[in-house]
Amino acid sequence: MTADADIAPGTVYLVGSGPGDPDLLTVKAKRLLEEADVVLHDKLPGPDIIGMIPEEIREDVGKRARGERTSQQYTNERMAELAHDGKTVVRLKGGDSFVFGRGGEEMVYLAKHAVPFEVVPGVTAAIAGPGVAGIPVTHRDYASSVSFVTGHEDPTKEDSAVDWGALADTGGTIVVLMGVGKLPEYTRELREAGMDPDTPVALVERGTWPDQQVATGTLSTIVDARDDIGIEPPAVTVIGDVARERQRVVKFLQNGAES
Amino acid sequence: MTADADIAPGTVYLVGSGPGDPDLLTVKAKRLLEEADVVLHDKLPGPDIIGMIPEEIREDVGKRARGERTSQQYTNERMAELAHDGKTVVRLKGGDSFVFGRGGEEMVYLAKHAVPFEVVPGVTAAIAGPGVAGIPVTHRDYASSVSFVTGHEDPTKEDSAVDWGALADTGGTIVVLMGVGKLPEYTRELREAGMDPDTPVALVERGTWPDQQVATGTLSTIVDARDDIGIEPPAVTVIGDVARERQRVVKFLQNGAES
Repeated sequence: MTADADIAPGTVYLVGSGPGDPDLLTVKAKRLLEEADVVLHDKLPGPDIIGMIPEEIREDVGKRARGERTSQQYTNERMAELAHDGKTVVRLKGGDSFVFGRGGEEMVYLAKHAVPFEVVPGVTAAIAGPGVAGIPVTHRDYASSVSFVTGHEDPTKEDSAVDWGALADTGGTIVVLMGVGKLPEYTRELREAGMDPDTPVALVERGTWPDQQVATGTLSTIVDARDDIGIEPPAVTVIGDVARERQRVVKFLQNGAES
Repeated sequence: MTADADIAPGTVYLVGSGPGDPDLLTVKAKRLLEEADVVLHDKLPGPDIIGMIPEEIREDVGKRARGERTSQQYTNERMAELAHDGKTVVRLKGGDSFVFGRGGEEMVYLAKHAVPFEVVPGVTAAIAGPGVAGIPVTHRDYASSVSFVTGHEDPTKEDSAVDWGALADTGGTIVVLMGVGKLPEYTRELREAGMDPDTPVALVERGTWPDQQVATGTLSTIVDARDDIGIEPPAVTVIGDVARERQRVVKFLQNGAES
């Protein structure tokens, strides 16, 4: 660290950028992007939002060097180092920092190193992606709960910590983030856990982006629908009766109706 | 309806206002509040945001007349009527319209009545409330999923549709919205379903508002903590190991550290 004891530490803002449409940044996030000394980001906020940040204050901590991703440890140390130099730092994450975004770990690191920080919540793609496609994640008549889970778990874990059977038993909507690649595996697990194979499923790729795509089907047919339409990450999977709502409204839906 | 066939219908924007801090409105929501012909709202967006809307374009569809709330049917009809008169309408909801917000029902009504509409997602209090209090709803090490549920179900339902046992079995974080009053009932149901009585629990009242309050405890002690601190609705309940994170960071947390 190059900290100077005479300099008051700067604040680190853990900022969620929302699902990708710059219009869905919060007022506060937009202002912080204009006022920060440094913005540490990866690719997930998307090109439109990253393009708004002046190049001279941008640091891509998601980039790969020699095939390896910048480590979480590097990002943590860099945040603290900049703050100890008195800089105002924005740590920008796609969606919300606390929904599978490792914001929790970054926050604890900052506190351990006596760095003042602030949490600036964002619009999560887990709700907004389905939303702009005409799919409400809850519904009074047939979804009393919604569960969010990641399809792309920490590869260092020996066993999946996700209990798909228990998620099926809740009777609520299941939303899977980062779940394009493992779609065949978890749709099979849900069917084996007793979920109706005709349960509606939708995949929303790049929800709120100009090139948004949507595939719809059922627990039995969605893998084929994914392949027919060519859904690629990043995408959100919605499993439950709510996924059927899109077809009831899409004719009058002014955004998110591209596919 | 007073629709005139010569007038092109206006668009209805189903807008989430976020958790209450006007700085957490999206850029798009803020612009729509400035440009709308009419804003239909209830109390949930909070006084700071409602205060930003010019009085002459505001219609409170949440107010009580003779002890009865304005019905959902009235709100639906009013949205369609205004749109058929060519007005640009914002239907403003607290948080996100699709998280226990009846946005799904409103969307289907609009489509049935040939009203063009757009979904403008918001920051949900279910994530932001805990977040600004230093509680991440997911965590790589000990929360692979998060489930959102309402503690205040439709009173016309005979049985609760919420399966607390299944939610406990997921092993993930449980977030209860509108769950101040029924806290004794569902914390008991979770203990009876086998959840560890020492599971950390936090209540965040008016997260992101200037008068935010936080109570922390366990599945066994949180009811007493609620009463000691005097937590009132609206509040969000977070159940799971993540609720413990607040105490590790609160000293350096610049917002949300009031209580």
